[in-house]
Amino acid sequence: MTEDFQAITRFIVEIEKLKNVERKIKPAGLSRYENSAEHSWQIALLALTLLPYAEKQTDPLTVVTMLLLHDIVEIDTGDKFAYDANHDDYENELLSAKRIFAILPDEQQQTYLKLWIEFEHAQTPEAQFAKAIDRLMPVLQNLHNGCQSWIDHDVSVTQILHKNAAIEIANPLLWQWLKRQVIEAGERVGLSN
Amino acid sequence: MTEDFQAITRFIVEIEKLKNVERKIKPAGLSRYENSAEHSWQIALLALTLLPYAEKQTDPLTVVTMLLLHDIVEIDTGDKFAYDANHDDYENELLSAKRIFAILPDEQQQTYLKLWIEFEHAQTPEAQFAKAIDRLMPVLQNLHNGCQSWIDHDVSVTQILHKNAAIEIANPLLWQWLKRQVIEAGERVGLSN
Repeated sequence: MTEDFQAITRFIVEIEKLKNVERKIKPAGLSRYENSAEHSWQIALLALTLLPYAEKQTDPLTVVTMLLLHDIVEIDTGDKFAYDANHDDYENELLSAKRIFAILPDEQQQTYLKLWIEFEHAQTPEAQFAKAIDRLMPVLQNLHNGCQSWIDHDVSVTQILHKNAAIEIANPLLWQWLKRQVIEAGERVGLSN
Repeated sequence: MTEDFQAITRFIVEIEKLKNVERKIKPAGLSRYENSAEHSWQIALLALTLLPYAEKQTDPLTVVTMLLLHDIVEIDTGDKFAYDANHDDYENELLSAKRIFAILPDEQQQTYLKLWIEFEHAQTPEAQFAKAIDRLMPVLQNLHNGCQSWIDHDVSVTQILHKNAAIEIANPLLWQWLKRQVIEAGERVGLSN
């Protein structure tokens, strides 16, 4: 059992590095960019809070575990901005997932890798809900930090509405409500259409 | 339903502030202190990874939700160092928990407040396991960052062993294994006994 504790310790020390992976968003009220570790905390909690509004039967523990794990690959690959052309970096991220989860005892490494792949493929209700929440958070943040990352990266309203349409899977009314706010905010801060 | 989404948005924007609450620990390899948001992410994942080794039947979703929520009160009260005499600040933290969870729709505010109080009272297997993990993480970090927070705050080996004895609840063998490492590290870096 000591070997398992050693492996888990190596894993948890390795993932300290996620606290050093910078995203493109500044949290409302902060002058620095957020990192992928604190982002993962926040979306896990956002998912738990919004799960009672999910359309489909969705297992909360699976969703939360996925969200806590999903960005760990960025330790190797860095954060990709959702609106960048090279956003999809699945093959490199898979290599990273395999490297990092392989630090763990056999059973956990299989479980985590499977969940990470399930999230990426977005075919199950849990993965679709988790993906929707991962999209939702930066939209909420932009609506409360003066559209900082949208302005910084010259993102258009059309791009925002297209990129985040998957939020509808979490809850269609939520997406309707958000779309109006995105359009209004875009007009207010002068984003292109 | 829109009212609920507004409330949940206000909550998730309010808790952005936890990213700005500094703890006393520097993660291995980082020159800055960690914050309570990224700490909450890491211990949620550490708990999930160690739950298969729990002695008692312990519900994972309850543990993880507790850990994601437990530090939110520090938005008002700040992080208290575990070895400080005034570490226990339950009454102020409870006020903060009530203030922040009250932002949410009724059902979630009740659920979260109840979980927060359950964690604080540490009477259920879930709360005891979650508390053990919250203690375990800084021990593992100190064992990998040259005992930084123990040295900075002049903590003795006896204090460390006393303060963290609750880790035994998560797993007695884990605690035996850690105790030896703490004693060795204390000798190596010259902590007082």
